[in-house]
Amino acid sequence: MVAPLDEPLFFELTRPQPLLIVLSGPSGVGKDTVLQALKKRNLPLHFVVTATDRPPRPGEVDGVDYIFVSREEFERMIAADEMLEYAVVYGDYKGVPKAQIRQALASGKDVILRVDVQGAARLRALCPEAVLIFLAPANVQEWYQRLINRHSETPETLQRRIEAVRRELTYLDMFDYVVINRQDHLEQAVDQIVAIIQVEHLRVHPRRITL
Amino acid sequence: MVAPLDEPLFFELTRPQPLLIVLSGPSGVGKDTVLQALKKRNLPLHFVVTATDRPPRPGEVDGVDYIFVSREEFERMIAADEMLEYAVVYGDYKGVPKAQIRQALASGKDVILRVDVQGAARLRALCPEAVLIFLAPANVQEWYQRLINRHSETPETLQRRIEAVRRELTYLDMFDYVVINRQDHLEQAVDQIVAIIQVEHLRVHPRRITL
Repeated sequence: MVAPLDEPLFFELTRPQPLLIVLSGPSGVGKDTVLQALKKRNLPLHFVVTATDRPPRPGEVDGVDYIFVSREEFERMIAADEMLEYAVVYGDYKGVPKAQIRQALASGKDVILRVDVQGAARLRALCPEAVLIFLAPANVQEWYQRLINRHSETPETLQRRIEAVRRELTYLDMFDYVVINRQDHLEQAVDQIVAIIQVEHLRVHPRRITL
Repeated sequence: MVAPLDEPLFFELTRPQPLLIVLSGPSGVGKDTVLQALKKRNLPLHFVVTATDRPPRPGEVDGVDYIFVSREEFERMIAADEMLEYAVVYGDYKGVPKAQIRQALASGKDVILRVDVQGAARLRALCPEAVLIFLAPANVQEWYQRLINRHSETPETLQRRIEAVRRELTYLDMFDYVVINRQDHLEQAVDQIVAIIQVEHLRVHPRRITL
């Protein structure tokens, strides 16, 4: 006599454990370019829009390029612990509102955000279960060439960037994955990020994000 | 003055850390079918050939289907600790020779092997850095139908298999990943295993296999 089989012997695999994915890496490595290419894949992925107190530039759309708020509102949000992470960049506040991430996670969507390496280190402490991806150039010549191609660097800022990147590499240890952004192989880097997201959802012990 | 750039500021990413991948799961879930389909992807992946002391069946090729050895030789290998894992299946020895795995890993190839769930549990203890994948059916009806379709089961063996699978599921906790082998979606399961292998190679802290 065979036992009845209506019991859930196997878990039906619908595990709604959305991920918080943090893309970081040295300045000039191509984080924005990678995120733009990732957007085109149309995954169920929420791309965090950074909040700032600087005024919109011509053509910038509120809620798309940035969330534009007043300095007073930004400082209120900091005081009320409504920012997951923020920094002052060239005198302007930039930050990641917690509410936006919570909302996306609650809807079951994975969330991805980009921060600099120091910001990623702070996020690791705030949210140990985040998936931290370090975007790196294939080699230093490639990275250096990319910075020079921006035409916005002086010898002094280049020197500072090289020193910054040396410091940033000391943080590598706290990341989960390294993805190499090879010149002319952008889609390969995007493929790897997509694979990381896919595979993280196959974990027997899924990461549980609490903010 | 910009610092010289011939130093290895970024690690050039050629990390030859081959993986030991263990595919397991309840009997009847389709482990062999998945491995056959994975072979066709032509990845740089060594598929472990099991050693056995049973005589070859017509058509079976030594070194391809099994490594055929005498009972004396098999027992000598056990005594000499040359088997990573072995079991007696229907009165015949079956085992995984360590030398084969060491050789493949030394050549830089990832190694994949299939074992039953108890064997995977033993491998986890022997080699904590192995990547353990649990292959599961989408639901119990699908799994049950697959067993029945084999036409080799009696009501009694079916009952025993159901009890076995209940025990096996208690081991799930020690696995790294769950891959669902959905009926008529074999290639999706294979894609997921390929993605797991790819992503494991992107880890900042690669697994180091020692046997």
